[in-house]
Amino acid sequence: MRIIGVDPGLNNTGYGVIETSGPEPRIVEGGVVRTRPSDPLEERLHTIFQHISAVLAEMRPGAMAIEDLHSRPRFAKTAILMGHARGVVVMAAGAAGIPVYDYQPTRAKNVVTGSGKAPKDQVMRAVASRLGDDGVTRNEHLADAFAIALCHAIISGSPAAVAAAASKQPMTGW
Amino acid sequence: MRIIGVDPGLNNTGYGVIETSGPEPRIVEGGVVRTRPSDPLEERLHTIFQHISAVLAEMRPGAMAIEDLHSRPRFAKTAILMGHARGVVVMAAGAAGIPVYDYQPTRAKNVVTGSGKAPKDQVMRAVASRLGDDGVTRNEHLADAFAIALCHAIISGSPAAVAAAASKQPMTGW
Repeated sequence: MRIIGVDPGLNNTGYGVIETSGPEPRIVEGGVVRTRPSDPLEERLHTIFQHISAVLAEMRPGAMAIEDLHSRPRFAKTAILMGHARGVVVMAAGAAGIPVYDYQPTRAKNVVTGSGKAPKDQVMRAVASRLGDDGVTRNEHLADAFAIALCHAIISGSPAAVAAAASKQPMTGW
Repeated sequence: MRIIGVDPGLNNTGYGVIETSGPEPRIVEGGVVRTRPSDPLEERLHTIFQHISAVLAEMRPGAMAIEDLHSRPRFAKTAILMGHARGVVVMAAGAAGIPVYDYQPTRAKNVVTGSGKAPKDQVMRAVASRLGDDGVTRNEHLADAFAIALCHAIISGSPAAVAAAASKQPMTGW
């Protein structure tokens, strides 16, 4: 079973694919899709869609995990633009027949670190530790994507993820 | 030259294709893509994308006209959901290599009716009159889609549309 987590954004869309069928969840692939603000919106959205669709076709995850809709109130324009990017990412899952699960950021933080108010660097460290790869900390969008994938793995009850979540101490050296 | 106008929405996405190469702008095709609130978001977005993509492939418009981003502040959740639908519509244009032009609703109303504050029924009547087809008034999303297509035709300066816009009187019997 593979899970893809996505942190959608018009400038940077982070994605992370994890495999949960083994004894411990492990990273399969991750990256950040970047688009240029100087390019037309339609081309930027198409780039995001094409890239995420290609990852879905190659990795064949059984589920997509993504932040909840309500998580970014802020300004209407920001919310709408974020909605555009989120829309094409969610639609890419729909086109590939992959179900989408959304989680509130506080819940994801709580599941991954034990605290819904964990600061960003703590979330990054927890994700790196649980997945046994410090590489996820090199980019915040990548880390957020893996965090939401891990959250779904834990909540959906994969044995490996549940075992990892049961430990209150961050695990190192995986 | 064909122009497609789109009024994007998660429940109802109106679209209208007009031809502006003749002496007067005329309707080529129009419709409303409806999705069920009970269906998963990813499937609803995919339905909108597939339908609009099919229309673009068949009709081959040279431009897409759509309401400006800023036009729906309201609540963040509404704005984000509208952004999802708008995102996949704009992306469909990007995938088809069609440039997208956006207009503020007040500007579109002003261009089509002569008043930026025209009520909905006045806009509908003006669009029906200019396009010579009362059919556009049968649905508000359809009417909004044709209104924005007509707005782009007028502003981008097609001779037919400019001639029509120059008349202060609604034209009937086209």
